[in-house]
Amino acid sequence: ASSSLPQHVGRTGFMDFPYVSTPHKNLMVDLVSTVESHLGSILNPCTLPPDVQSYQNETGTAHAALHLRSGVQSSQIDFILGSWLHCELPTGGALNITSLSAYLNSSTDAPNLLVELIQSSPTSMVLILDLPHRKELVLNPDYLKTFYEDTQLDQHRQRLEKLSEVTPYFSSSLYIRSVVSPTAILVRIETEQLEEMIETHVSPIAKEVLKTWLDVCAFGERVVGEDERVYLKKRDEMSKSKTIEIDLGSSLPRLFGQETANRVLEALREVF
Amino acid sequence: ASSSLPQHVGRTGFMDFPYVSTPHKNLMVDLVSTVESHLGSILNPCTLPPDVQSYQNETGTAHAALHLRSGVQSSQIDFILGSWLHCELPTGGALNITSLSAYLNSSTDAPNLLVELIQSSPTSMVLILDLPHRKELVLNPDYLKTFYEDTQLDQHRQRLEKLSEVTPYFSSSLYIRSVVSPTAILVRIETEQLEEMIETHVSPIAKEVLKTWLDVCAFGERVVGEDERVYLKKRDEMSKSKTIEIDLGSSLPRLFGQETANRVLEALREVF
Repeated sequence: ASSSLPQHVGRTGFMDFPYVSTPHKNLMVDLVSTVESHLGSILNPCTLPPDVQSYQNETGTAHAALHLRSGVQSSQIDFILGSWLHCELPTGGALNITSLSAYLNSSTDAPNLLVELIQSSPTSMVLILDLPHRKELVLNPDYLKTFYEDTQLDQHRQRLEKLSEVTPYFSSSLYIRSVVSPTAILVRIETEQLEEMIETHVSPIAKEVLKTWLDVCAFGERVVGEDERVYLKKRDEMSKSKTIEIDLGSSLPRLFGQETANRVLEALREVF
Repeated sequence: ASSSLPQHVGRTGFMDFPYVSTPHKNLMVDLVSTVESHLGSILNPCTLPPDVQSYQNETGTAHAALHLRSGVQSSQIDFILGSWLHCELPTGGALNITSLSAYLNSSTDAPNLLVELIQSSPTSMVLILDLPHRKELVLNPDYLKTFYEDTQLDQHRQRLEKLSEVTPYFSSSLYIRSVVSPTAILVRIETEQLEEMIETHVSPIAKEVLKTWLDVCAFGERVVGEDERVYLKKRDEMSKSKTIEIDLGSSLPRLFGQETANRVLEALREVF
């Protein structure tokens, strides 16, 4: 019916990752599939409206997809959220962001999962890979030990740090800097061989971090008292609403127009 | 009486900073003097025993000084702590650490002050410069705004980041990484012109950060409820005892022998 539209636009689903390189797509598909195969039985289907699962701007220069599955009542999962966003740049290139995050609920205090690849040129990418903590680390050194020291998460950051193509990245948002853990991988990768870099270094590390999250966090058993549960709920809510505001609050209206932005933000706020 | 001892050893006081370069010494003296002239009337004299104010190892290859003044009861100051440490390295060079920190008490929730210069070779220095937060930032975006966004502290970090001689530094302690704020300056400086670098870049920035701390934190008025006060006490205690343990717990015995280490740590633990 829409054969005159560019191949990408239209019925493209979240798992198609239509605008990014093959290694980038393979990595995202692998991560999402791994999460869904491990958590599948405790996740509800994605109930986002079709025009929130995939949306674009009027001129077709910006296109995005969202995939959101909440955890069943008895589970430790609040929800998982996958997304991609493509947007042509006035300079001729394109911005491509793909992300996967997983939020646990207040029946556990274990860390969340955050993976984001932000590609703003064929030779430059920002990688954010972290298990954001859900308790204050200064006050809870045992928590730091369990989830960050004993899991040796910092070795991944150290491995990347050694590569000459990799430099530390500082988010312009101080709030985001506060949300991420002390072992967070926040790096800029600049290289002509970005695809090889993703295959050789980014993918193996992202998969290992996800494995740690699944083993230690998503399926770890934690004892959470009633007071702590209240604290976690409050902290999670604050962290999610601020993250939405910072990530999407200003960029969505700019890229997709106010109407679409409202529709998407409203759908997200229902779960967030 | 001890004219055969090297000039440095013996009665050297804290403010002499005898082992570091002139610009490095000038900076430290300036920072300590500024703090003492602003807080002077609300600080008690240093009551550390003389053999804790200055101590060395048996062979004279390691030498250190401490300067600690607590705040008077009615003040917002818990204490200020200055230190320097000199230690000859087996490789022929020397390690020189100078630091100034200031801790507020639970009548305010404003950030502390932390300045540390770690010089391990004539051409390499680690600079730590921060106002460590005392409340959880994820849960308290207003606190983040007041002390870190509105004060534009990040501009100093950004200025340093642009210099080719400067690279981000990651503490090997995940706890220390958790203690520092999102605008913390944690950098390694590598250059043949280290003295010029200190004069031109490090000193002006350190002085500005100190000015912010004095204006906004040490003399800022904050309303702190009873629950918060309990929280601050607990968090401050944890943070101080962990910091001592990480900073000095293993290095002092190694450098100065167990007896001296015990004496120093005991004196510090009384205040910490």
